[in-house]
Amino acid sequence: MANRVQTDVLIVGAGPAGLMAAAWMAQMGVRTTIVDQKPYHTRCGRADGLESRTLEILDSFGLGDKVWAEANHTVEIALWCGTADGHLRRQSVTANSKPGWSRFHESTLSQAKVEEYLMEYVKDRGNVDVKRETAPTSLEIDYDMIDDHDKYPIRLDLEDVTSRPMSHDSSMEVAGLDTSADSSSDDSGYAGLGHVVEAKYLLGCDGARSWVRKQLGLRLEGESSSDSWGVLDIIPLTDFPDIRKRFIIKASCGTVMMIPRERKLVRIYVELPSHVATQYRESQDGTILMEQVQKAMHPYTMKTSHIEWSTIYTVGQRVCRKIGLHNRIFLAGDAIHTHSPKAGQGMNVSMQDTFNLGWKIASVVKGALKPQILETYQQERLPVAERLIALDQRICRGMCSRKDEHKSNYSRFDDDHKRALEEENSSASGLAVVYHPNLLVTSTAPEMASAGLNNENELALNHSQASLAPNLKIGARIPSLLILNQSDAQTCHLQQILPSTGQWNLIIFGADIAAPDQARRLSSLAEMLGRPESVIQKLNNHAAVTRRGFESVGINLIHCAERLGIELHDLPAIFRPWTDTHGVDYNKVWVDEAAYHYAGGGELYKSFGIGARGCMVLLRPDQHVSFLSDMDDVAGLEQFLTSIVPEQTY
Amino acid sequence: MANRVQTDVLIVGAGPAGLMAAAWMAQMGVRTTIVDQKPYHTRCGRADGLESRTLEILDSFGLGDKVWAEANHTVEIALWCGTADGHLRRQSVTANSKPGWSRFHESTLSQAKVEEYLMEYVKDRGNVDVKRETAPTSLEIDYDMIDDHDKYPIRLDLEDVTSRPMSHDSSMEVAGLDTSADSSSDDSGYAGLGHVVEAKYLLGCDGARSWVRKQLGLRLEGESSSDSWGVLDIIPLTDFPDIRKRFIIKASCGTVMMIPRERKLVRIYVELPSHVATQYRESQDGTILMEQVQKAMHPYTMKTSHIEWSTIYTVGQRVCRKIGLHNRIFLAGDAIHTHSPKAGQGMNVSMQDTFNLGWKIASVVKGALKPQILETYQQERLPVAERLIALDQRICRGMCSRKDEHKSNYSRFDDDHKRALEEENSSASGLAVVYHPNLLVTSTAPEMASAGLNNENELALNHSQASLAPNLKIGARIPSLLILNQSDAQTCHLQQILPSTGQWNLIIFGADIAAPDQARRLSSLAEMLGRPESVIQKLNNHAAVTRRGFESVGINLIHCAERLGIELHDLPAIFRPWTDTHGVDYNKVWVDEAAYHYAGGGELYKSFGIGARGCMVLLRPDQHVSFLSDMDDVAGLEQFLTSIVPEQTY
Repeated sequence: MANRVQTDVLIVGAGPAGLMAAAWMAQMGVRTTIVDQKPYHTRCGRADGLESRTLEILDSFGLGDKVWAEANHTVEIALWCGTADGHLRRQSVTANSKPGWSRFHESTLSQAKVEEYLMEYVKDRGNVDVKRETAPTSLEIDYDMIDDHDKYPIRLDLEDVTSRPMSHDSSMEVAGLDTSADSSSDDSGYAGLGHVVEAKYLLGCDGARSWVRKQLGLRLEGESSSDSWGVLDIIPLTDFPDIRKRFIIKASCGTVMMIPRERKLVRIYVELPSHVATQYRESQDGTILMEQVQKAMHPYTMKTSHIEWSTIYTVGQRVCRKIGLHNRIFLAGDAIHTHSPKAGQGMNVSMQDTFNLGWKIASVVKGALKPQILETYQQERLPVAERLIALDQRICRGMCSRKDEHKSNYSRFDDDHKRALEEENSSASGLAVVYHPNLLVTSTAPEMASAGLNNENELALNHSQASLAPNLKIGARIPSLLILNQSDAQTCHLQQILPSTGQWNLIIFGADIAAPDQARRLSSLAEMLGRPESVIQKLNNHAAVTRRGFESVGINLIHCAERLGIELHDLPAIFRPWTDTHGVDYNKVWVDEAAYHYAGGGELYKSFGIGARGCMVLLRPDQHVSFLSDMDDVAGLEQFLTSIVPEQTY
Repeated sequence: MANRVQTDVLIVGAGPAGLMAAAWMAQMGVRTTIVDQKPYHTRCGRADGLESRTLEILDSFGLGDKVWAEANHTVEIALWCGTADGHLRRQSVTANSKPGWSRFHESTLSQAKVEEYLMEYVKDRGNVDVKRETAPTSLEIDYDMIDDHDKYPIRLDLEDVTSRPMSHDSSMEVAGLDTSADSSSDDSGYAGLGHVVEAKYLLGCDGARSWVRKQLGLRLEGESSSDSWGVLDIIPLTDFPDIRKRFIIKASCGTVMMIPRERKLVRIYVELPSHVATQYRESQDGTILMEQVQKAMHPYTMKTSHIEWSTIYTVGQRVCRKIGLHNRIFLAGDAIHTHSPKAGQGMNVSMQDTFNLGWKIASVVKGALKPQILETYQQERLPVAERLIALDQRICRGMCSRKDEHKSNYSRFDDDHKRALEEENSSASGLAVVYHPNLLVTSTAPEMASAGLNNENELALNHSQASLAPNLKIGARIPSLLILNQSDAQTCHLQQILPSTGQWNLIIFGADIAAPDQARRLSSLAEMLGRPESVIQKLNNHAAVTRRGFESVGINLIHCAERLGIELHDLPAIFRPWTDTHGVDYNKVWVDEAAYHYAGGGELYKSFGIGARGCMVLLRPDQHVSFLSDMDDVAGLEQFLTSIVPEQTY
């Protein structure tokens, strides 16, 4: 008889997606087991691109500084074309990430480091049981208890695979990339020798050939081409002038894309003629790929003293259209989207999948949110997966030289390709992802009007007044600008007051609170929020018992009055909470004002488009805007909150 | 017979001064022993202020980010006065550190953390043998070998003091502060039971009651007053509005100064009536000090749930006027200057002493500099110690309320006090320290003229043309501004390309190198510097053998031509050095140009006052400007270098 244990959340796969989910569970104190077949984390190769939003997310777990310092920042992108006489010509050098979108910009750091830092984070916090060299062998679901979220309807057999031959060479994987289609070996025949785990929730973060996905009878849909590309990590010995920029060369013999990396490495993608692809598949010899790179980069010299890693892939874009089942089982990362690695999105979208999912599951486990909100995972993330696939198709179409061989302009960058490259580093990277109205994202008034709803409708209170901050998007992550602490003038970025703890945040943009009208409105709002019968007070009281001191909804004030004209102790008490051991919490009131020592500060109200009446914004634990209203609309705020939290918590 | 070992450098005292010296030795690969009586590093209390220059220095060892992130940044200072009717009135709130002096500004972090990080650095690099619970018991100097720097003329007996009672309570010490005058116990009677160490160089970093200083028959000179001050680290429970700013209150019952700290702590200095001082000395009870603080802060409430540390001191400023002997034995830190802790300078000046000394000793040990240059330690650091004492006297004079009791304006801040406070955070912190001409700092033309020298004099080549960069000061540390990498547009601060490795750096400010004239001058300079018979080439060849790959003199180019108009591979080869394993070094050419993503960039030439002809600047390993000349003056540069390096190295 196998050992039987219960865990709230079982995560299959300890890659970036699985570890990001585990980070939430570790932070929010949810009993979790994460299993992975491999004996250790990725050592080299695989994914390397970190988009701005991913860096913001890592920073929300306190990992931003470390990753940012170690990563190579990809500031510029150079586009090169082959000329009729066999030379190469530089067509343009531009910013690789659009300035102003984020305080971070696109960077590269190996997946190995990202996994290492996330695993350190998870282990430091406890709560998560990490089982390596462990694989699931069977999945059972007890549908009788599927709607009772106190029960454990999921049962997995886990097996120790220490002595089992690896079913594939992990060095051949690239995030986002399914290198073997669905041809992996059958995993049956190993069952019944290990542990049995009963779980409330199951996450399949187990890659392109996801075992979990297969158990559910789901598959990736989409097309593959026969175009093959080589991938290399090398230290280049070259006279090519843009080797430390990201660059794309469309040469007559094929396309090369290169991305500078940390430790003097570069990542290379090179288009391969089919006979070269065959040669490489047979020999696994990276020098064959290097020869192709050299050809494309001629007349520049391109050699290497060190091939750190190489692989090959065929272009294909496939997506799984069912990513959440019964609010109990979820798929994320490569298990639901595979594509070419050229857009550098694989590791990013994968981590962003579980960054979206993790706090939701943890909040349901902790009784802070209704189980129904888990539906929003599929609603929010499937469109992102689909858009990723579409973007990758456009980038691949632009990249593939042979597709254009019959055209005269084979080596030009067409406008759609250039637009796709630009989107890759602005909107596509997660910064401009907007989740549509759902249980966790309120509608705006125009959306309600178009849906035939009006103020007398019972849902009428549950909407946002987007016009109060026209440059903020309901459903999108809140942009970050420099703000100053009221009490000590230290600067921080808005997002830094929104760490990933599982807490929601109400940000009151009080505008000029030195003006009598605004002072009155602020005082009235504070009084409403501070009443013992206020929903936020009740939620926080409940959370204090169940969530190790984290509040359920934090309250912050960001005003734009002259800072030295405002005395913290004149403000309502709710903005200077007190404990008998630590006195006043001085980190609740912030100012939009120019900083002493840094450029920036004093630009937030203008950037968000917030007017003299101010507004208040409710942010989800993932920094996405959930609700935006007038400072007087406490009823609307409470209506929204009570619609998503279980009755027993308020 | 005791064990006998040889070490190049023996450091007595593992506080901030001793550890900074050890950091240089660890980094530059010098065999070193550091001994300290205490079983572990400082745990709480003592020093806490980190000035801008100290943060720059820590950053040059790669510790800046960590310390900066953890420290509390003291942005503002508030001055308060008692009023005739017994209330307190805020007189001003201003910036605590003058913006623009440094990329860092004054911060606080406990000495405990600073020691911890420096010790980690030392241990990570090896070369340094750390002996805790070890004290020297006798010192012998063999004067017969004192001028032969290959010999070990210093002999110390070291004793294991594990079981020896501590001669004083270390919790009573504040950096910079001699709490017990010279009344410490006699250390004799412990000799002869342990190791004998023979050393080339001895550093006494052993605090106000320095054992090393006493062996040399040297003493601190200066005066003490009977004024007593209490010192506390607490978590405050208060309604005082400026508690998270640095503040000074001159109340009728005495002065209080408070500095916000990390972890919600504040550091308090409070002036004590003599009977209160007596009470505290008898009881060691911090609540007695708190009562005095409460009195001074009335009518605001001021309580605490947690007194982390407390001590008392009497004001005194004393200095040792001999800080280097025979170019063999050196004193640093509290061993040569004791003063009040109010200026927050103690830990800073102490670390800056050995930051000045460490690379010099290491370079002499490695044969890279002549032993005579060790004279510059006394020449450069004694004036700093003297100025520190003078500043502290001014600050103490301003702080002491009782001195003014007979005056009507007892509770006002006089102008000299305010000026002293401002200097504390700008010039006094090390940023504006200018070392006068000596073996390692060239004279300027006007200085030479006033000394009656002219161009025909044999020393004539050994001077700097300060007018080529009028805002750079010969002998001062080079200011830091944002620059861009030529090859990848990544930004960094100028000082970040000058890490503390022991390497000198020649920075060529080539100005607009796209202009034909400047291109020609750059090319000619590069040719001169690149010749096999060039002094820099010879020094670097020598260093390659003796110094683990660090160059003796690094060569960097910072130009102000349009970056994308310059191709790295068109520049002289000296600016793109090549190795067969790693290809081109892309970190030698930098541009003064606006950055894509950050404010800043493009302001360096203007800020330094460098004109169209450009200039070149030779920086010492401690970032201080040693030599500044026209780009054509390679002869002057070589003359200077050959004057300080031993003949066998070129």
